[in-house]
Order: sequence, then structure tokens, then C-alpha cells
Amino acid sequence: METLAKIEDINQPRVVIVGGGFAGLELARALRNAPMQVVLIDKQNYHAFQPLLYQVATASLAADSIVSPFRKILDGQDNFYFRLAEAICVDTEQHLLETSIGRIRYDFLVLATGATANFFGDEQMQRHAITLKSVADAIELRNTVLSNFEQALQLGDMEKINSLLDFVIVGGGPTGVEIAGALSELRAHVFPRDYRELNFKEMDIHLVQSGPALLKGMSAEASQKSLEYLKHFGVQVWLDRRVKSYDGYTVTLNTGEKLITRTLIWAAGVTGSPIKGLREDCLLPGNRYAVNEFNQVAGYDNIFALGDIAAMRSELYPEGHPMVAQPALQQGRLLGQNLERQLKNEPMQPFRYDDKGSMATIGRNHAVADIKLFGRDLRLGGFIAWLAWGFVHVVSLVSFRNRLIVLLNWAYSYFSYDKGLRYIIGTRKVLPPVEDTQDKAIT
Amino acid sequence: METLAKIEDINQPRVVIVGGGFAGLELARALRNAPMQVVLIDKQNYHAFQPLLYQVATASLAADSIVSPFRKILDGQDNFYFRLAEAICVDTEQHLLETSIGRIRYDFLVLATGATANFFGDEQMQRHAITLKSVADAIELRNTVLSNFEQALQLGDMEKINSLLDFVIVGGGPTGVEIAGALSELRAHVFPRDYRELNFKEMDIHLVQSGPALLKGMSAEASQKSLEYLKHFGVQVWLDRRVKSYDGYTVTLNTGEKLITRTLIWAAGVTGSPIKGLREDCLLPGNRYAVNEFNQVAGYDNIFALGDIAAMRSELYPEGHPMVAQPALQQGRLLGQNLERQLKNEPMQPFRYDDKGSMATIGRNHAVADIKLFGRDLRLGGFIAWLAWGFVHVVSLVSFRNRLIVLLNWAYSYFSYDKGLRYIIGTRKVLPPVEDTQDKAIT
Repeated sequence: METLAKIEDINQPRVVIVGGGFAGLELARALRNAPMQVVLIDKQNYHAFQPLLYQVATASLAADSIVSPFRKILDGQDNFYFRLAEAICVDTEQHLLETSIGRIRYDFLVLATGATANFFGDEQMQRHAITLKSVADAIELRNTVLSNFEQALQLGDMEKINSLLDFVIVGGGPTGVEIAGALSELRAHVFPRDYRELNFKEMDIHLVQSGPALLKGMSAEASQKSLEYLKHFGVQVWLDRRVKSYDGYTVTLNTGEKLITRTLIWAAGVTGSPIKGLREDCLLPGNRYAVNEFNQVAGYDNIFALGDIAAMRSELYPEGHPMVAQPALQQGRLLGQNLERQLKNEPMQPFRYDDKGSMATIGRNHAVADIKLFGRDLRLGGFIAWLAWGFVHVVSLVSFRNRLIVLLNWAYSYFSYDKGLRYIIGTRKVLPPVEDTQDKAIT
Repeated sequence: METLAKIEDINQPRVVIVGGGFAGLELARALRNAPMQVVLIDKQNYHAFQPLLYQVATASLAADSIVSPFRKILDGQDNFYFRLAEAICVDTEQHLLETSIGRIRYDFLVLATGATANFFGDEQMQRHAITLKSVADAIELRNTVLSNFEQALQLGDMEKINSLLDFVIVGGGPTGVEIAGALSELRAHVFPRDYRELNFKEMDIHLVQSGPALLKGMSAEASQKSLEYLKHFGVQVWLDRRVKSYDGYTVTLNTGEKLITRTLIWAAGVTGSPIKGLREDCLLPGNRYAVNEFNQVAGYDNIFALGDIAAMRSELYPEGHPMVAQPALQQGRLLGQNLERQLKNEPMQPFRYDDKGSMATIGRNHAVADIKLFGRDLRLGGFIAWLAWGFVHVVSLVSFRNRLIVLLNWAYSYFSYDKGLRYIIGTRKVLPPVEDTQDKAIT
């Protein structure tokens, strides 16, 4: 008794994929010619290109430019079925996945649910901070930034005005660095034109990083250059600092400094999004599933985990692979081949991560890139890295339409120094009000 | 004591415009060189191009393609100030406008608040119907249509499935006709590919029109042709019918027929959105302000109404001008000139409506257009009218960026028979659930 009405051929084995991020989508595509039913469930009906979420948040791109509906991507794939649903728990005995739309039988279950922001149990922080893990988050951040400035126009008290103009970004990884760079561009070229009545010399952008260097997964050169670039763009970088608390107004660092902001962007730790019903001992710290070299979850033959939610520990990667797009894509592709091998009773092939390098962009004309090319390590910076970053991201977008629209938007922004998408549509973060004694000052 | 902190020069007269639709925005632009402070308030921070809302609702265009932030449009205009606020009431004695952000003093007040859907007091209808007057409405309709189909996949009972696949559109004006055409295109080319498990022969599109003809403001030829086109596309048109009631599931017509749908799109009557504080006798039936030939609200020298909210009654237009873009734009432009004339103590010029005609599109390659060209009446139909419609709408968009993006999207949709923007982002209409006895049927 299960819930997938209207899927006719029940004589084929069925793989159920939970989550259509890089890993899940790539797996679904890899199975296009497999004699299997491929059922993808996701809370959204679209794949979002996460590396560009920060550009949606900073009014460079519209949300629609970086998302593609699953049904459209996999249009011609006859064995593919999508269901808009949330996974609730697994019955590993009966091979049933309990979801928000009912139970779904599986022969193979693939968990590709990704990761969410980790606030390490700090509920106050969680309530007040803005994260950047989904399209909804990105839209909320954009709306919040713009609403802040609209509100600031009505205030007289300088500290209150500054609390709306200033931003604190927690986490010096690619997301944190890229948001800081994008905000500094907006401060230099866009906001002063839009809000002539505000003084954007008062707008401070703080980036708080717990370790001694930015972009810790990258080379020392990249860390050093990104720090230089951020300083060049006027971002205040706080190294070796942690945020102790945030009450929606005052950020307190572990070293005692206090920063005032109504907008704290949390780009620090992430944690896996596991599902109920699996043995507890297969879940590692950080909520990632321990998987073997075939991405099988420890203790199961027919349950797999891919991407951010999977920790495939090895000598080279003792804590599993970095939680970025490349391992997810490569694992998805290999699992597709391995499932086909299983059907033919051939042995599965183990996963070998082909690290192509990593990159981060920091405002106009500046980026850093560590690239592995023909076995050699290239360290790029500045304009060349920025072009490489743009090229890699455009070609990685899922559809031709999105590639074209993103390119056009970037070309427009580049030559006009403008970010066109400064509208408030949808929700914004609403924090408890702070009283302003000089509110509603006279003209 | 008022609320516009940070506007420095108080020695200039100030015109306060409420609402940044076609009329309000055109007025603000027309005053670009006037020695006045131009203050625009609006509930949104962007101008929306209403004639293309239906394309957002039907996944042809992204919302961002048809909106432009006010601050960006009026970037270089030094005398322009925008405030994100809602007007509450007017104190005509003190020349103060009460808003959600406080009181604003005015020398000239211009009401350009437009119109909203009119349900003629039917609260049940209002609760269950979807309107199409704002960007939020359009996004809600798109999300609702897509969510319906996702839900239909889970049902076994044919009537319940049909209630999710069928659409009832009330109102045979341009909006109703255009939505019906767009839905029929989706039914023919897009949905069957996306939802192979559903039978789109079961999807019915009903258009209910109270009078004997569609597009009643247009020529008899246009009415006749639009009816033919809709029938060609398989839309069921119910002429001379009114909707008596709708409970979220069953639509009952005044002639007794019943239609089943979870999605009723209300594109019938509209009513003005007046503001409190003005004399009651200046408000006509339909909630439009009686204005003279200078758009002055009856009984006031320095309060004006423009566009949909204004009824300038004349021999040719005994009930005021049609509630469409052209009168709004022309009135906004003229009022700009007239306010400048007032400052120079010159007499104001009366408004003369230059009717350029009207048009409506009905699905792929089909449109009707009544065009006035060099004093001659042209009646166009078919492909020519469809090209004319596209041309007029693209050049009317506010920014070059939007023109380009809309053109690209249209070209893409035209050649691929696809509508790319089929994602569910944001809210959707949630009606009370209907129990499905065969729910969760077995594979």
C-alpha cells in the first residue's frame, strides 16, 4: 500500500532519491538509460544553483535565473518521476520511505538532502540571523537589506541609522567573502544613487572569521589575496574572532568587541540534514552519514548518501570530502553507473575524488582561484581569476536559458556599475523594533 | 511636525503623489525639471507593468522582468524622493497626508492609487477567488496552478482530479481573455510534457462573461474574433452568464449550470481604492473620484486624482475614461505640465484623451487590435495583431533591461513552445481540503 499512484511499470527496480541538489540531480540524469524507475522527491519543484545564491541576495540576479524546475530539466527522460514532498522517515525493513504525501516503496534509497546552517544550539542567534542556504533565504536577505535603508530614511538617531546600514557577516568561507564583496560594490556604486539622503560612508561591512585566515580550504596565497581584496574594498575583517552572542542589535565577539547591526548574515558552520529511521551509529559528528567508497551508508546495502550529507572518510580526506558542488556531482554520476552495474551483477567501482580546485570572487574584477590543470597547481588572482570564476559558473548553470540570462545580467551590471533587481517582493526578516527617540524628525 | 526627515530644501512647493502606477510614475517623470519637491509614496518599492502580469501568472515571464524599482527609474532626478509607505488619510485643512510612516505635508496632493478587484460584497467569493492586480497576485496564481497539478498526481477520484486541472476565469475583458489563451497554450505544449501521468484532455478552461460579447470596450470585429480564437484553442466560453456563488469547489452560474474547480480567477469588476478624509460627495459609484478637466478632485484646488481612480465625465465618456494605461499616462503627463503652469501663474490646460486604440492577445500567434492611426480606425486580427501587440508591449516597458529580457524570453518561448518559469517560489492559494476517498491509490 503506497502513494505513487499513476506510475505504471512496477516490474522495474525503483531508486528513490531524496533531494535534488547537485548530487541528486546528477544521479537522476546519470540514470537516464537505466532500466529503473527514478523517483526524485524534493521540498521544492526546482533545482537551485547554490553558488550564485549570494548574487540573488545582493540584487545582481533574479531568483529565476539560477533555478530550473526539475520537470523541465528532465523533460525527455521517460523513467523519471518527480514528487513535491518532504521525507519524514525510513522503514529500512519494509523498504518504505515515509513522506509528507504518503509512503513510497524503494529498491534503492539515495539520501542527498544536503546541509543547513548550524547555529551550534544558539537559539537567539538562530532567531535573529539570516542564512543563505536556499532561494527563500536569498530573497529574504535582499528584501531585508532594501527595507533597512527605507527604514533608515525615517530615523534621526545616528546609532539607530548605523544599525540599519551596517552588516556583520559571520564566516570567512567562500559565501561570506563573496557576500562581503558584493555588499561593498553596492555601497560604492548603487546605494548612494538610490538613497541620496543617507551617508554611505556610515555603512560598515564586517566579516568575522574564527580562524587566522580566510577561505581556509584554499591555498595560503588565496587566503592572503582575498584579505587584501576585501581591505581594498573597505570591508573590515575580524580574524581569530568568534561571535559570542547576537540579540538582533548588538553583536558581541568572544574578544569583547561589540558591533551594532540589525542584519547579521550567518555563513559559518553547516550541519547535515539527516532523516529518521536509520541506525544511529551511521551518523557522524556534523550529522553526516558515514559511507563507504560506493557511497553506501554504513550497515546498509541499498541505502546510499551523496554530497554534503555523506562523509566518505579516507587517508586524504579524514573527515570526508569538502561540502561543495564537485564531490556531490562526481558521486552522483558514479552512483548512477554503479546502480546500473548492480543490475547487471557487475562489481561497483569505488569513488575517487577528482579535485578540480576551488575559487571565490570578491567584488568587481577580483577573485582568487586554486586550479588543478593537467596535474599542476595554478594559483590565480585578480582579473584573470575573476574571468575564470565567471566562466566556470556560467557554464555550470543547468539550462541554456539561465546561462544566457545570467550572462546578460552580468554584462549589464559590469558596464553600468548597476545592480538592477532592487525590488522588495516577498518576505523580509522582521526583528523586534528598537525605539528611536528622534524618530520622525522634522524636515 | 512631519515625517520626511532628510529632505533638505523646504522652500520649494511639494507635490505628494500617492501610488506609482502608470499615472503616478508618469507625473513624477514629467516634473523632472520643475522647481518642486516630488515625493512619491507607494506600498511597493517598484513600478509593475500591469498589462503583463498575466504572463507572470502563466510562467512566461519572471516577475523581475516586468517591475522596475522607483529609485532606479528616477535615478538622476534630483527633485524626486521616494518613501515606502501606505497612505491612510488626508487632512485637507492642514494639507497633511497621514501615512504608515507618519504625516507628510503637501502643497499639491495627487491620488493615483488605482483600482482593486470588486467582489460586490461577496465575501465567500473574495476568500476563494484569485485576482490578478499585483505582482504578488500573479506569483500566487502561478504557484497555485503548479501546486494543483502536483496534488492531482496523488489523487484517484476523477472529479477531484478534475477540480484541480480545471480553471474558471470570470470576466471576458482583456485580462480574462489573455489568461484563458495563455492557459490553453500551457495545456497544449507544456503541461503534458511535465505531467505525463495526468491526462490533459481532462483539463477544461472556462471563461464566464456577463454580457453577450467578449472585450466589450473593443469593436464588434474584435469581440467576434476573440471568441473564435478562444474556441480554436479549446476554451469553453460562457456568454451572458454570471457567477452566482463559489465555495472553493463548485461554481454556480446564474443560469443554473455548475462547474467544478479549485481555481477561480476573478478578472471581472474593479473598484477604486479611495482614501479617507476627502468630502464624500466627490466619490462616484465605483469608488472613483469625480474630477474636472484638470483632474482636480471636485471641491479641491490642490488635490488631484489620476488614472483608474479618477472619473472625468464628459459627453464622449459619460462614466469617465476606460480604466487602462493610456488615460493614466496622458493624465499624468498633462498634470505635470499643469502644475508647472500653476507655479508660473499660467492657466492650466484641459485634458483631451487621445485614444490610440486597444488590443488583446489570445494565445500563440493570435491577437485582436483596434488601432487609431492618422485618424483612421484599423481593425487587426491574427498574426499581424499579435506582432503589433508584442511590439507595443515591449516598447512600453520601463527599462531597456526589461525590454531585452522580455524579448529574449518571448523568443525562447516562441521557438521552443516552452514556458520556462515553472517554479513554485513564494505563497500559493490554500483552500480548505476536499476529502478524496481514493486518495493514495496503489501503484
